[in-house]
Amino acid sequence: MGHRHTIHQHHLGWDNSFAPVVHAAPGESIEFDVVDAAGGQLSGASSAADIGRLDFSRINPVTGPVHIDGAEPGDVLQVTVLSFAPSGWGWTANIPGFGLLAEEFREPALHLWRYDPSTLAPALFGQWGKVPLKPFAGTIGVAPAAPGLHSIVPPRRVGGNMDIRDIAAGTELFLPVEVPGALFSVGDTHAAQGDGEVCGTAIESPMRVALQFDLIKQVPLSYPRFRTPGPVTRHLDAKGYEVTTGIGPDLMQAARAAVGSMLDLLTRSHGLPAIDAYLLCSVCGDLRISEIVDIPNWTVSFYFPRTVLE
Amino acid sequence: MGHRHTIHQHHLGWDNSFAPVVHAAPGESIEFDVVDAAGGQLSGASSAADIGRLDFSRINPVTGPVHIDGAEPGDVLQVTVLSFAPSGWGWTANIPGFGLLAEEFREPALHLWRYDPSTLAPALFGQWGKVPLKPFAGTIGVAPAAPGLHSIVPPRRVGGNMDIRDIAAGTELFLPVEVPGALFSVGDTHAAQGDGEVCGTAIESPMRVALQFDLIKQVPLSYPRFRTPGPVTRHLDAKGYEVTTGIGPDLMQAARAAVGSMLDLLTRSHGLPAIDAYLLCSVCGDLRISEIVDIPNWTVSFYFPRTVLE
Repeated sequence: MGHRHTIHQHHLGWDNSFAPVVHAAPGESIEFDVVDAAGGQLSGASSAADIGRLDFSRINPVTGPVHIDGAEPGDVLQVTVLSFAPSGWGWTANIPGFGLLAEEFREPALHLWRYDPSTLAPALFGQWGKVPLKPFAGTIGVAPAAPGLHSIVPPRRVGGNMDIRDIAAGTELFLPVEVPGALFSVGDTHAAQGDGEVCGTAIESPMRVALQFDLIKQVPLSYPRFRTPGPVTRHLDAKGYEVTTGIGPDLMQAARAAVGSMLDLLTRSHGLPAIDAYLLCSVCGDLRISEIVDIPNWTVSFYFPRTVLE
Repeated sequence: MGHRHTIHQHHLGWDNSFAPVVHAAPGESIEFDVVDAAGGQLSGASSAADIGRLDFSRINPVTGPVHIDGAEPGDVLQVTVLSFAPSGWGWTANIPGFGLLAEEFREPALHLWRYDPSTLAPALFGQWGKVPLKPFAGTIGVAPAAPGLHSIVPPRRVGGNMDIRDIAAGTELFLPVEVPGALFSVGDTHAAQGDGEVCGTAIESPMRVALQFDLIKQVPLSYPRFRTPGPVTRHLDAKGYEVTTGIGPDLMQAARAAVGSMLDLLTRSHGLPAIDAYLLCSVCGDLRISEIVDIPNWTVSFYFPRTVLE
């Protein structure tokens, strides 16, 4: 595909002592073979019982690391997302103890997806609806300066598991470099996800990802930032949204209330079982902060695209 | 305009003992003459010094209340937003002690806007850019059951100052009724606002608002919800977004970091003074929760529409 390297090696956790598998010069593009967030432990034959049997020491593998020639702490690594070659299958799970409403949803659940990797036509969610797709990498980042092995689950200043659904094809991502060579890795590809990833998983789907690397020397950057080339929600906004709110002095509680109310609405109006509504909200609904200034109560809204069910 | 009533009376605070100024039957539409959130204390001749002289006992007047015939506690009041007749002028202020970055921006600031109320063409923000407009009512709600006078500043379960920028023309809003007759009021009209209203004010602008009322008997509703008739961001998303992030275990701190980084970017890349960047972000930038599940760190993103500056 015109890339000098395709990387297949994965690692578990961030550790700046990991040896790079490839060296890349600024301007170079590389293809990454990304496995799903369960590291291949699930397949088209899996069921909810397999969620209970997951080996969490194998969760969230990332492909890399790539040493960027000349990268030094204080630099910014610019990553241009060139393209995705999705696999056509994926999964969404409720993993007990994980997710915004973990208290309410204590049982494992698993939904398996099939989609057309060439057309990326909206993917059927059982009898309930169709979810527009937009592939992106949930985990994308560089090694932290702090020595030792660090979990990949939480995102950090250097990026990682940010789960930002708009880091899609055409986006330019800017990451703060903390170690020589940057040590870039990518993983956790998703075929679709809403803002919040409320059940804790998206449409988890292995893909190939092509990225280009550039270096910006010694520019201050507190946290990752990015630039999208165009609109970010036109694949799903055509029919508008159903929106629920949560209002109160705690953003987390308000977010839980907003999502809980959406589950009530979807179960009451459309007959979805609550667990299905929860998984569906995670792959296509968006958590927004409508206001964060009207002391002492904030408004968090959850936007569910009507096109999914209509 | 085909409405049997146009209401001009305003009140300060929510109080279910306030006498209704109009009774309306379900199905009826009413026009409301809404003054700006400062209750007429600012004009096209005002300056930042006038922000320091604001009488806060006159802040956030709302027009109403309207008694909806037959409304009882436990009902849902459906409010269809028919149309706005904007005035063509507005203001955005930094009010000391108020706003997401109140610690950093301690001085009063005021920006005055002129816009074309018939075309609603994007409004000039000095030499810096143009802001797409989408009028809505920042405060819209019904009287709470709790007796006595309650500030209008915080939103509540019964709505009020929710500052949700998508409660625009065509939207159907559903409010939980807590007192007989519902006692509906509306105010705080904005010509434009981003999700978050980060500096604490939007394009505060007096308008006439036409609304239609319907009643849904005895349906449970925890918090307000609404339904938009179509896309909500197409007026400003055509050129994509610049996005900054904040990552950490506290959503409020992450939101502050994301907005702070956007101010850094706008000042560095486009030369805006920080206070102008702050006001501009409040009227067109969006706070989103990208992920709220990757324990212990959440990702909050701030989306600034590139069309504003390009």
